[in-house]
Amino acid sequence: MISAGTTLALIRERKPLVHNITNYVVMNETANATLALGALPVMAHAGEEVEEMARLASALVLNIGTLSGHWVESMLLAGGAATARQIPVVLDPVGAGATELRTTTAHRILGLVDVTVLRGNPGEIATLVGAHAEVRGVESIAAGLEPAELARTAARSLRVIASVTGPVDHVSDGERVLTVANGHELLAAVTGTGCMSSALTGCFLAAKPEAPLEAAAEALAAFGVAAEDAAAGAAGPGTFHARLYDALYALDPQTLDARTRIEEL
Amino acid sequence: MISAGTTLALIRERKPLVHNITNYVVMNETANATLALGALPVMAHAGEEVEEMARLASALVLNIGTLSGHWVESMLLAGGAATARQIPVVLDPVGAGATELRTTTAHRILGLVDVTVLRGNPGEIATLVGAHAEVRGVESIAAGLEPAELARTAARSLRVIASVTGPVDHVSDGERVLTVANGHELLAAVTGTGCMSSALTGCFLAAKPEAPLEAAAEALAAFGVAAEDAAAGAAGPGTFHARLYDALYALDPQTLDARTRIEEL
Amino acid sequence: MISAGTTLALIRERKPLVHNITNYVVMNETANATLALGALPVMAHAGEEVEEMARLASALVLNIGTLSGHWVESMLLAGGAATARQIPVVLDPVGAGATELRTTTAHRILGLVDVTVLRGNPGEIATLVGAHAEVRGVESIAAGLEPAELARTAARSLRVIASVTGPVDHVSDGERVLTVANGHELLAAVTGTGCMSSALTGCFLAAKPEAPLEAAAEALAAFGVAAEDAAAGAAGPGTFHARLYDALYALDPQTLDARTRIEEL
Repeated sequence: MISAGTTLALIRERKPLVHNITNYVVMNETANATLALGALPVMAHAGEEVEEMARLASALVLNIGTLSGHWVESMLLAGGAATARQIPVVLDPVGAGATELRTTTAHRILGLVDVTVLRGNPGEIATLVGAHAEVRGVESIAAGLEPAELARTAARSLRVIASVTGPVDHVSDGERVLTVANGHELLAAVTGTGCMSSALTGCFLAAKPEAPLEAAAEALAAFGVAAEDAAAGAAGPGTFHARLYDALYALDPQTLDARTRIEEL
Repeated sequence: MISAGTTLALIRERKPLVHNITNYVVMNETANATLALGALPVMAHAGEEVEEMARLASALVLNIGTLSGHWVESMLLAGGAATARQIPVVLDPVGAGATELRTTTAHRILGLVDVTVLRGNPGEIATLVGAHAEVRGVESIAAGLEPAELARTAARSLRVIASVTGPVDHVSDGERVLTVANGHELLAAVTGTGCMSSALTGCFLAAKPEAPLEAAAEALAAFGVAAEDAAAGAAGPGTFHARLYDALYALDPQTLDARTRIEEL
Repeated sequence: MISAGTTLALIRERKPLVHNITNYVVMNETANATLALGALPVMAHAGEEVEEMARLASALVLNIGTLSGHWVESMLLAGGAATARQIPVVLDPVGAGATELRTTTAHRILGLVDVTVLRGNPGEIATLVGAHAEVRGVESIAAGLEPAELARTAARSLRVIASVTGPVDHVSDGERVLTVANGHELLAAVTGTGCMSSALTGCFLAAKPEAPLEAAAEALAAFGVAAEDAAAGAAGPGTFHARLYDALYALDPQTLDARTRIEEL
């Protein structure tokens, strides 16, 4: 059953700990988005502690936005601990396709860690399934496949839930495809909103690990509704950004489902 | 004498340089809080420069929120330079109790550096005095001691001013206990507000090094008053966060003491 | 020809990718300023990928605000790739003069990389030309030369466009000196606004590489106009900061030139 409101209520009740190993650019922002939603974020990246921290958490979010060697090793260690405990893992392959290091690292994580949800933009996901993609830095401009087909193909070939975000998001387990039509164009004017959506995906998975396809779509829908609320009255990307945390905090589990626009293709 | 207004006026007049070695999540936020209050922040963590930077500073703030090996060594080097110069040092043991690395690192710093103020939440401080604590990630839920007793015990056994923050803060030198009842619940919905309170403790110590118990309580009271001002009119944690810097900047030394709620137990 | 509006229109049309290797404190803020202006930021610092990323970019911005050994090597690698491709490079020597590591690193980069624009405050720039400067942490208080003379001297001796920012900015190629009188005092109450001005200088250079003196002055003028807009209605540094991105996003290429206050001495 798809119900972002029900899952949000569970998150607020249980306050799951979500372990993020993410990039320097968005650490504060993903932590604040997680807190505003109602879960507890923790950031830890040292090889000496990531397995221990991942064992305390209800979900793990790996984000390769600013890599270096030690961080890759820590992601693999934490991912191994998460896989052993069978807690959900989100991978955000930021910039895959832009450099060899990023593409290779994403593939290494996919090979060694039981990734539950792969959340990226079309260019990043297309790169990882070997399709043509034009990637400029960490922004991907276009991909060679229709997004629904891309999501389904990625899910099958990489054995994940593929969560391909864009003006309309496409989430697939390889068979079913859910679309999410919530959101606002100002999201593209603030850095790290994709990373935030990955972090919130981790929160929803922590509360609903038994249904990752639905949880991934619910996370994007809830984030999109918050963006719609934040945009109403915002004067531009800066005030939108501040209001986005207000809106996440104010999301009402009772009324959320009436506003989410999730459909099955 | 306790007077947050007097100390704030001194900070604004002298603009002390406060050297922070802190975690990635809150670097921007602690720097902005320090600037908004009226002091000058500097962030430097390279082993090659931390001693030199600590020698330029009027206070040092060490925060273990995102550790790795090199950073621990740099904290010890900077702490050694600060100890040699007898400038105040604040330690924020973020997540002590959650992982062995964090607990051990906090103890190493306490053993090797002349820490003036240990600022943490009840679970972190309880961990460091060996009491029972439940810690989830970097959020501690509960501790086995009453906060006043915890602060007094920590101050005695660790030979610091213990600054235990919560809905009401408790600051102790092992004999006296000061309570601070300023603040707002939205502080808990924004990441890094505890880290900010540690950074501001460094600013107050820089201006009033001769009375660290009072300075530590004044810092928490001033921050709490700013939070109260920020919350008035905020629509949630995002706008509260932006308004918190406005409120710190607008704190009025003339009227601050009438608003601080510091009491001695 | 000097026309910030024309260059801004080009930035919005071409959306140049600007590669930043910058400090931890301001990564999010410089990325958001770049996005709000209309360019695409990318942050990457791993030795394994910086040359590849710099080869995708239209400009490179190096900022030494939080150094460590690996980062210095990555800056030199990226700078080498940028020099080989003859794309513009901005260097922000944050804290030069405060510690030996920072001064030395700035000189190493200037020696090995073809730096187009050196953007700093008077103390940092004075340090690099060997003049007397008083530097406290990363804030410089004073320099031994008049700013116009400092900019001209730095440009000649370091073979760069020198962009010396302050209440009035001075930009020189060693012969001509342009002054920029836009801006607002609240910029000094928010950390990283100097770093943002360096990042935006990279954006303007990416769109106007053939005229770096003019592009550097236009960038500061555009940023200053945005600051003026942000300050109108701001209640302090926090809301000013959020509104600064709104204002960058809202800058109108058609009317910008009427508001910029660029003069040639």
